[in-house]
Amino acid sequence: MKSYKSMTKDELLSLKKELEAAYVDAKGKGLSLNMARGKPSKAQLDMTMDILDVYNSKVTPVTESGVDTRNYGEMEGILEARQLMADVMGAPVENTIVFGNASLPIMYDNISRSMVFGVCGSTPWCKLDKVKFLCPAPGYDRHFKITETFGIEMITVPVTAEGPDMKMVKELVESDPAIKGIWCVPKYGNPTGCTYSDDTVRAFASLKPAADDFRIYWDNAYAVHDLYDEGDELLDILSEAKKAGNEDIVFEYCSTSKISLAGAGIAAMAASEANINWVKKSMTVQTIGYDKINQYRHVLYFKDINGIKAKMKEHAKHLRPKFEAVLDCFEKELGGLEIASWTKPRGGYFISFDAMEGTAKNIVAKCKEAGVTLTGAGATYPYGKDPKDSNIRIAPSFPTPEEMAQAAEIFVLCVKLATVEKMLEA
Amino acid sequence: MKSYKSMTKDELLSLKKELEAAYVDAKGKGLSLNMARGKPSKAQLDMTMDILDVYNSKVTPVTESGVDTRNYGEMEGILEARQLMADVMGAPVENTIVFGNASLPIMYDNISRSMVFGVCGSTPWCKLDKVKFLCPAPGYDRHFKITETFGIEMITVPVTAEGPDMKMVKELVESDPAIKGIWCVPKYGNPTGCTYSDDTVRAFASLKPAADDFRIYWDNAYAVHDLYDEGDELLDILSEAKKAGNEDIVFEYCSTSKISLAGAGIAAMAASEANINWVKKSMTVQTIGYDKINQYRHVLYFKDINGIKAKMKEHAKHLRPKFEAVLDCFEKELGGLEIASWTKPRGGYFISFDAMEGTAKNIVAKCKEAGVTLTGAGATYPYGKDPKDSNIRIAPSFPTPEEMAQAAEIFVLCVKLATVEKMLEA
Repeated sequence: MKSYKSMTKDELLSLKKELEAAYVDAKGKGLSLNMARGKPSKAQLDMTMDILDVYNSKVTPVTESGVDTRNYGEMEGILEARQLMADVMGAPVENTIVFGNASLPIMYDNISRSMVFGVCGSTPWCKLDKVKFLCPAPGYDRHFKITETFGIEMITVPVTAEGPDMKMVKELVESDPAIKGIWCVPKYGNPTGCTYSDDTVRAFASLKPAADDFRIYWDNAYAVHDLYDEGDELLDILSEAKKAGNEDIVFEYCSTSKISLAGAGIAAMAASEANINWVKKSMTVQTIGYDKINQYRHVLYFKDINGIKAKMKEHAKHLRPKFEAVLDCFEKELGGLEIASWTKPRGGYFISFDAMEGTAKNIVAKCKEAGVTLTGAGATYPYGKDPKDSNIRIAPSFPTPEEMAQAAEIFVLCVKLATVEKMLEA
Repeated sequence: MKSYKSMTKDELLSLKKELEAAYVDAKGKGLSLNMARGKPSKAQLDMTMDILDVYNSKVTPVTESGVDTRNYGEMEGILEARQLMADVMGAPVENTIVFGNASLPIMYDNISRSMVFGVCGSTPWCKLDKVKFLCPAPGYDRHFKITETFGIEMITVPVTAEGPDMKMVKELVESDPAIKGIWCVPKYGNPTGCTYSDDTVRAFASLKPAADDFRIYWDNAYAVHDLYDEGDELLDILSEAKKAGNEDIVFEYCSTSKISLAGAGIAAMAASEANINWVKKSMTVQTIGYDKINQYRHVLYFKDINGIKAKMKEHAKHLRPKFEAVLDCFEKELGGLEIASWTKPRGGYFISFDAMEGTAKNIVAKCKEAGVTLTGAGATYPYGKDPKDSNIRIAPSFPTPEEMAQAAEIFVLCVKLATVEKMLEA
């Protein structure tokens, strides 16, 4: 296909007419498709519907370790569920706590208790003039929303296929004691789909922060979410940090939201003994214990990490064609045009799309008008502001494959049209 | 029986010998009984075990209102669960949010967001020099632990059978803008078992606090927890507050922890529109939604408030003999001795016992030595300090009726012995 850059103004004008006509047609179809959030599809939820059968009234409600899963207590979660989640993260069971149905509230709570109580004995952040976080971007909008809500200043760090720019991270973290944390989705990142290289993980593990209470928020949300038999390998940060004499530097999180049922999974955190004790200190006041029935249900259903791996193969089989439909469409329709680039993830829930600078908002608006909802342009950057107005997060999981193909067609059409409009502006 | 007060020193000395001998015998039995926490018994949990069967893989996972209970979203909880919990509290469904498995974390979160963000636009409490809470006592230790943890100064307010001393509450709340809240368990209170009178509720509803951000923390934990067919009636504070032009003054909480399964219930909050919007504002950042599978499970199981009422009759049938065993033993063994008083609740989970001043710690220690664990003496007061060292919380729910009878025997023996020891000290 002919690169847009090589086109004359007349060629662009005639292309614009053509695209506009196609766009009018597309709007006429009256579609209503959603590629906005990383929501599992109905088919994926159906896949795990039988988890509701394993813990019924005929099952002994007491675990092997002697806990009645129906009663109060066992704040850290039942041992069997802690083992399951520890294995998802590759963390030691004694350093793993299992919470409620999602990992986002665990992260929110960690920030919240840092604000009010301080981290492991440090000054409460609410008593400080300035607290800053590093935000590798494009990144996860809900992470950024948490730090924004708590009035924490966010500093954007660029991301490559290897992970965040570690030279910049190191310089900032090691010089500025106001920097208290960094948000990371280290495997199949949201939205890039990329996995941090071993060098990146080791660079994180060996940081020497200016602030004692600096922590890496390691959201390992897609730890086992491969799309292909051969998945990316992520180095285990907990053991790397320990090796580097730096074991308190990281909080790791994961959940089964995209393994079992999105709204009713179980979530966990792993960290050093000192960090876990700090969390437990205020947890003791906050809760008598999370839902152990659902924890045990997950144990009965998956049994162990192999049960989870088997389930992830089912998810992969379902998700792969959707990702491929999108990527094929991008390649076919946009390849060689030199107007956009995109990631080709081997796992996770997202594709990160970089359009021509200054067109992302227009693309998202055009898609919406044609019935295709995308994550808001800018959402992948701190404060919702993409300085280049270029990045768009694509979430292929929720629509059916047919809907996905339709949505991708509309999307590439809008990309082309917005790009031509932009080029003619100049 | 002869009042201890009327005894001569010699009589007391001889009684002491007798009691000491009985105590040695009691210790010899090697008992291990727990009356410390308001935990449902195994039999009570068995009663609701079939809740695990109603939501299975054959059930349509989408609610009548069109929500797929398995997926993300629906932050306020599914409509059907909101209706169920609204009916437990007697609150409007549009003012009710359903959360996770327990109400304690909802209260903790409300305090936490008041600290960091302020209440409905007021100054964040962490920016104030002093924040105070009123603590009707004897009261619920876990309430007091929350305010203590956040560094909030706690002021003890005496409690009668009608509720807190409202003259004192009114004077303090209406004069001191540092007072931001009061903890209440208005029905079958923890530990008194008493229910606030209509006058008390109306006095609360018509308070004119010096602080705009003062709130009543109305923990309606035992809203439907009658022990007898005819239960106590609690006036609805939300509508009374509204009538008084004071609708923002109260946060109401409840849960099914002692209706369905203690560790895996659902919990709710009701409040004015302004208060609910304030909660939702930070909830949107904190969570994508609570476990709707468990919410729907409760809806399928109970159907409506009548289903809950029927279940509460089963609980009452089971709990009543335990309460009566304790109360009968107290009456039989301590009646007329003029050394103690206790409440005779018609619902809830506790009996409040007032021993002779300066003996509670000794009684609890003696019981422990004889194998009967009680809530720590002082726990029912702010900072765990009962100024009179007199109040002990009795929780009859967890042991079997036989164990309960044994435990009560030990308890009254320790009360007698500690009292005689105290009298001989003087």
